[in-house]
Amino acid sequence: MIEDILRRTMRESYASEKDSGFKCLNPELSSVVIVGGKGQLGGLFGRMFTLSGYEVKVLGSQDWDRADEILDGAGLVVVTVPIHLTNGVIERLGNLPEDCILCDLTSIKSKPLQAMLDVHKGPVVGLHPMFGPDVASLAKQVIVHCNGRGEDKYQWLLEQFGIWGASLCNIDAAEHDHGMTLIQALRHFTSFAYGLHLSKENPNIDKLLQLSSPIYRLELAMVGRLFGQDPNLYGDIILSSQENIDMIKRFHHCFGEALEILEGKDKQAFVQSFNEVSDWFGDYSTQFMNESQNLLKQANDAIHRG
Amino acid sequence: MIEDILRRTMRESYASEKDSGFKCLNPELSSVVIVGGKGQLGGLFGRMFTLSGYEVKVLGSQDWDRADEILDGAGLVVVTVPIHLTNGVIERLGNLPEDCILCDLTSIKSKPLQAMLDVHKGPVVGLHPMFGPDVASLAKQVIVHCNGRGEDKYQWLLEQFGIWGASLCNIDAAEHDHGMTLIQALRHFTSFAYGLHLSKENPNIDKLLQLSSPIYRLELAMVGRLFGQDPNLYGDIILSSQENIDMIKRFHHCFGEALEILEGKDKQAFVQSFNEVSDWFGDYSTQFMNESQNLLKQANDAIHRG
Repeated sequence: MIEDILRRTMRESYASEKDSGFKCLNPELSSVVIVGGKGQLGGLFGRMFTLSGYEVKVLGSQDWDRADEILDGAGLVVVTVPIHLTNGVIERLGNLPEDCILCDLTSIKSKPLQAMLDVHKGPVVGLHPMFGPDVASLAKQVIVHCNGRGEDKYQWLLEQFGIWGASLCNIDAAEHDHGMTLIQALRHFTSFAYGLHLSKENPNIDKLLQLSSPIYRLELAMVGRLFGQDPNLYGDIILSSQENIDMIKRFHHCFGEALEILEGKDKQAFVQSFNEVSDWFGDYSTQFMNESQNLLKQANDAIHRG
Repeated sequence: MIEDILRRTMRESYASEKDSGFKCLNPELSSVVIVGGKGQLGGLFGRMFTLSGYEVKVLGSQDWDRADEILDGAGLVVVTVPIHLTNGVIERLGNLPEDCILCDLTSIKSKPLQAMLDVHKGPVVGLHPMFGPDVASLAKQVIVHCNGRGEDKYQWLLEQFGIWGASLCNIDAAEHDHGMTLIQALRHFTSFAYGLHLSKENPNIDKLLQLSSPIYRLELAMVGRLFGQDPNLYGDIILSSQENIDMIKRFHHCFGEALEILEGKDKQAFVQSFNEVSDWFGDYSTQFMNESQNLLKQANDAIHRG
């Protein structure tokens, strides 16, 4: 009761602050239910909705016996559970109010989007926040959205993300999943394989760091940071589609072909191949040089301050 | 003549400023000759020596008919030419004054160090500046040194680098070269192979960037920046030893083995392997997480400002 009053006060106070980073765009919305709200990403979105004055309920993995009660009258349901559980969880959401918006935060989009469209007759949108739960704020972070059904009904939700600072990127679900074979699966797996290789070579990390230029320190940090995180998440992402595995196989094959240039000690072939790739990158290689230049300076400063 | 006076005035003025970043530690030294001083790295070191008041002469690839004249009475000779030319150039330096210090800046160390010891009877030291010629200053940059002969005679030179802000790292030449198979050869080649693979897959870079989380933007920038640079330099570094090629082959093999886990869709094996690598990284994975966290924030800010 007191919570209700507090929440309403918060909501009104936010709604009245037009420039607030948490302004509530849909004060009439009934509850927001975060399915998987006890996870890190679910927790982050739960906090954001709460700060904007929405009523947030959590449906955790232990709460399914109370699911009907929690989902009763929901205005927005956000599914954010491990990838391999996503479709199974979506299938249990067949009784949502017809005007309820159903969305998910999974890092693959085609299958969950289809599953949501199959189970729910109302508005559906697939979302992929391109950041981890450890961001300080959503400012400048990218949220990808794949339209499902009833775009006009969930337009306010995308705008709400914008209020929180996020940049929206609209893309077809299949195109998203194809891009992720490069952006997620291949990169994560390459870092994994590099870490595995390092552990077998077993160099002294301290000595490596002493010898390292800023760029290698950074590259080593990018690999090392992977192994401070959840193996299940990365396993799920990489194994989420055959398309991912095929992409990784093509990279391995390409690497093997390039290795043949080395085995023949053919520097001219290396330079020619290098120049062809430079042409493909075009102006981007210069842009990346400049972008990374500044960053390496900051990296160097940061490392030596530490 | 006027130049001589100017130089002497500069030298004295620097020598008198004890806290100056360019204080001259060896004002009695006769000339510094930079062999390859028209290259970018040679140019950087030439400027540093000049700013500290040393007399700097350049022996470029077109100057060998005047070599005796240029090298006459040299107090320090710095060899900084493309890797594949290094040993040939060193062999031409058999007539240096006996108290002259001979050093090189090559990114491999065993072979050039041996070549310098063979050709010159005086003080010899192998150097490897762990940074590119585009650094704004030497502050906090690492210079690796491999002792050759007459350490007490070139101690002032190492201290001079320290005055310029650099950190010194002493290491055995063979150990250095082994570390570089990981730090340079494998990383450069992996970036090369990834760029080659991307150019074959031919995705729309703009679309990839739109979809990218900060970490992938950074990784893509790290790869793309390679292709804005000199293919000959990277070809030379990678092809400089069989040890490099063997290291790259072992990585390729390790990647192939890890790929088998994926083909079997064996998530448990992936998680187990991942955990073993995490154990190997130990506390470093957390340290790398924190280090990269800050950096990713800066990257994100930098990218969105741009």
